[in-house]
Amino acid sequence: MRVITLTTDFGAASLYVAQLHASILSAIAAETNVAPRIVDITHAVPPQDIRQGAIAIGECCPLFPLGSIHVGVVDPGVGSDRAIVACRCDGHFYVAPDNGLLSRVASPRPADFAAVEVTDSRFWRAEVSSTFHGRDMMAPVAAHLARGVELAEFGPASASLQLLDLPSALSTSDEIRGQVERVDSFGNLITNIGMADLRGDRDWAVACATELIRGISRTYSDGEGGDLIALAGSGGRLEIAVVGGNAAVRTGVGVGESVKLCKVEAVEGN
Amino acid sequence: MRVITLTTDFGAASLYVAQLHASILSAIAAETNVAPRIVDITHAVPPQDIRQGAIAIGECCPLFPLGSIHVGVVDPGVGSDRAIVACRCDGHFYVAPDNGLLSRVASPRPADFAAVEVTDSRFWRAEVSSTFHGRDMMAPVAAHLARGVELAEFGPASASLQLLDLPSALSTSDEIRGQVERVDSFGNLITNIGMADLRGDRDWAVACATELIRGISRTYSDGEGGDLIALAGSGGRLEIAVVGGNAAVRTGVGVGESVKLCKVEAVEGN
Amino acid sequence: MRVITLTTDFGAASLYVAQLHASILSAIAAETNVAPRIVDITHAVPPQDIRQGAIAIGECCPLFPLGSIHVGVVDPGVGSDRAIVACRCDGHFYVAPDNGLLSRVASPRPADFAAVEVTDSRFWRAEVSSTFHGRDMMAPVAAHLARGVELAEFGPASASLQLLDLPSALSTSDEIRGQVERVDSFGNLITNIGMADLRGDRDWAVACATELIRGISRTYSDGEGGDLIALAGSGGRLEIAVVGGNAAVRTGVGVGESVKLCKVEAVEGN
Repeated sequence: MRVITLTTDFGAASLYVAQLHASILSAIAAETNVAPRIVDITHAVPPQDIRQGAIAIGECCPLFPLGSIHVGVVDPGVGSDRAIVACRCDGHFYVAPDNGLLSRVASPRPADFAAVEVTDSRFWRAEVSSTFHGRDMMAPVAAHLARGVELAEFGPASASLQLLDLPSALSTSDEIRGQVERVDSFGNLITNIGMADLRGDRDWAVACATELIRGISRTYSDGEGGDLIALAGSGGRLEIAVVGGNAAVRTGVGVGESVKLCKVEAVEGN
Repeated sequence: MRVITLTTDFGAASLYVAQLHASILSAIAAETNVAPRIVDITHAVPPQDIRQGAIAIGECCPLFPLGSIHVGVVDPGVGSDRAIVACRCDGHFYVAPDNGLLSRVASPRPADFAAVEVTDSRFWRAEVSSTFHGRDMMAPVAAHLARGVELAEFGPASASLQLLDLPSALSTSDEIRGQVERVDSFGNLITNIGMADLRGDRDWAVACATELIRGISRTYSDGEGGDLIALAGSGGRLEIAVVGGNAAVRTGVGVGESVKLCKVEAVEGN
Repeated sequence: MRVITLTTDFGAASLYVAQLHASILSAIAAETNVAPRIVDITHAVPPQDIRQGAIAIGECCPLFPLGSIHVGVVDPGVGSDRAIVACRCDGHFYVAPDNGLLSRVASPRPADFAAVEVTDSRFWRAEVSSTFHGRDMMAPVAAHLARGVELAEFGPASASLQLLDLPSALSTSDEIRGQVERVDSFGNLITNIGMADLRGDRDWAVACATELIRGISRTYSDGEGGDLIALAGSGGRLEIAVVGGNAAVRTGVGVGESVKLCKVEAVEGN
C-alpha cells in the first residue's frame, strides 16, 4: 500500500480538494492492483502562503512511511512559466510547483535526492486547464508514482529547486535568537528554535514581545492554569504555550515575532 | 475498488458525517471482499441550500472514476413524503432525496439514465429514524450498490426527478448574460457562463456590479497583483478573480449577481 | 478490514491530525496484509473539553462495525501522571487518556468490558515526546490492535476508569427534567433526555429558557418554516429545532441549559 498525502491552500470547504482525490483515483482506476491511501495533511494553508505550506510539509510529510508520495499545491503562479517538479528526498517522493514549497524537505539537500521537471504529458489528465495544475498534472503524476513509474519517466532532471529563505535560529553559548514560525490550532507559538540548541538545559529564560518566561517546562500541564510556559513541542522545536489556554490570544503574538533565549541567571537581576 | 462520495450540508465539524461513514462500513462489514473508498466531497454546503448542493455535485462527481456512487444529503424535507431516489447517470450512480439535488447531473437527461425510488427496506439500516435518512437509508443503499446490487432491486422505477430551475446563461453573437453561481474558497466568482460561449475569443468585456473588465486573461497570474481579471475557471466556466487576492471581498459580489459580456470594441468608447 | 476512528480537539485545520494518520500508517507499514480504514469522527471538540469529547465518542463510535478501534485524544494532562488506557467495551476497542473521555461508552459498564493501562513501550513510536502522546503512544497502540495484538499485551489490567459526572435526565410519570447536552452544526439543541422516557407519547410540553413548545413533532418539516419544535433526534434523544432554521441562534440557548417536560394538559391553562 502506497500513501499519497495532500497539502494545499484550498480551504477546508473547497470543492477543489475532492477534485484532487478524483484525479488520483481516475488515473489509477484502470490498474486493478493499485489503491494508494490518500491522506489530507491540511487544506488550511493561508491562500498563496508558500512559506506556511513549506512549514506544514516539512513538519508532517517525513512522519509518513518511506515511499510515501506527497503532493503540495500552493500555487499562485499556476499557468505561468514556473515549473512543476517531482523529486525524491530521503526516501519520500514530492510533487509540487517549483516555487519554494519544498524548501524544508529539500534543504539542506539530503544525500538521497533526485528531482525532475514534470513535462511528459502522458502522465497528465487528458484535458489540462491553465488554472488547476494540482488536479490536472500533479495529482495524476502522484498516482503514477504510486503505481511504480520511475521518477525519470516524468521529465528531464531538474538542476535546482527554488528555495525560500526560511530564517534559522542563531545560537551562541549563552544566547539563542529565533522567531515564531507558526501558530497551531491551540494557539501554541511554535518557534524555529530546535531543542538541540538548548543542550538539554532547562535554565533558559525566554523573551518574546513583552513576555519573559523563566525556565523550560516539560509538559502543557506544568504550572498553574493560565501560566505562560515554554517547552519542547512535539516537532522538536521550542514552543510557547498557556497552561489550559491559548498563547496566541493571551500574548497577541503571531508568526514572525522574535524570540530570544538567554540563561536564567542573566535575567535574575530583573 | 468502488468509490462512494459524500456531499452534505452537515458542516465540517458535524458528528453526522462520521455517522454516514459508519453506516456504509457497517452495511458492508459482513462482505469480506468489498471495501469501497469513501471520499468526502464537501460538507460545507450551506444548511438546506439544495441549489449549492446541486452545483457541488455537478462540478465534482463526474470527475470520479466511472461506476462511482455519489451520496448527496441536503435534505430539509427528511421524514416528509419526499422520495429518496437512486439513479444511474452517464456511468455514475447517485443516491439522494428527490428534491432537486441531482439537477445538474440529471438534466439535461443523459442517454445513460435510470432511476428508482428507494423503497425496499432490506437495504436500509435496521432502525430507521425520521430525522436522518442519509445515515439510515441513503448510505446503506450506496454500500449495497458498491457490492454490486442492481439498481432495480432497491425499488420501483421513478418516473421523473424533481429538478431545480438553475439559471442558464443566454448567449447571442455579441452579448452573453449570466450570473455568479458560486464563490470558491479563494473568493473567485464562478459564473454559469460556459467558456464555449466565448468561442475562443479573448476580446470580451465583462461587466459585473460596478466593475468592468476588458479582455479575458489566461491565468491567475496574468496582470499585476490586485488586478481584477476574468478567465476560464478549472470547471470550464468563466470566473472573475483578483490576482493574488480575493474577488468576493474586493467587489462585494456574491451568488446571484448578474454578469454581462459584450465585445471589447463595444465598450471602448466608455 | 479493521476500522480505526479518531476523535480529537485538534481543530479541523490542525497539522496534528495528519500526524495521527502518519503514526498509524507507519506502525503497520511493515505488515503487508494490514490496512485499517481510518475515519475522522471529528477534530472540532472544543480545546480541552473532555465532556464534549465523551459525548461525541458516545454518539458515534458504537455505530461503527464491531471490532472497530476508536482513538480519543482530548488530553490536557499529556505528560502528567494521568494514565493511557486501552479497553474493550461491547465489542469495540478504545484507546484514550484516562481522564473521563470514555465516560459514555464505559459507563454503565457493559458486560463485555476489559481495560489495560498502556505501558509496554514496544508498541509505541520509537521517540516519545512529552507533549503528543496521541501520536506517539495512542495511535501506534491502535495500529497494533488493528493487526490483532491482544489487549493484555499492552500493559497490566486497569482497575477502574476515570468517569465524568455526565448529568442524567430525571423522569417521573408526569415530568422529565434534563438539559441541553450539545448543539449540532444546524443549531439543533440536543438534550440528554432519551426518547424512551417519553413512553411513545407526543402530548408533552417542552420548556427551555423562555420558550414553551406544545407537543412532540415527528420530523424537521413538521410545522411552518420558523416554528420552534421538539422531536426525536437521530441519536434517540429529544432535540429542539427550528423548521428550516437554527434553534441555537433563535433561542440563544447553549450547552447546559435546563429542559423540562410536563404533560401538555398541565400547561393548557397558560
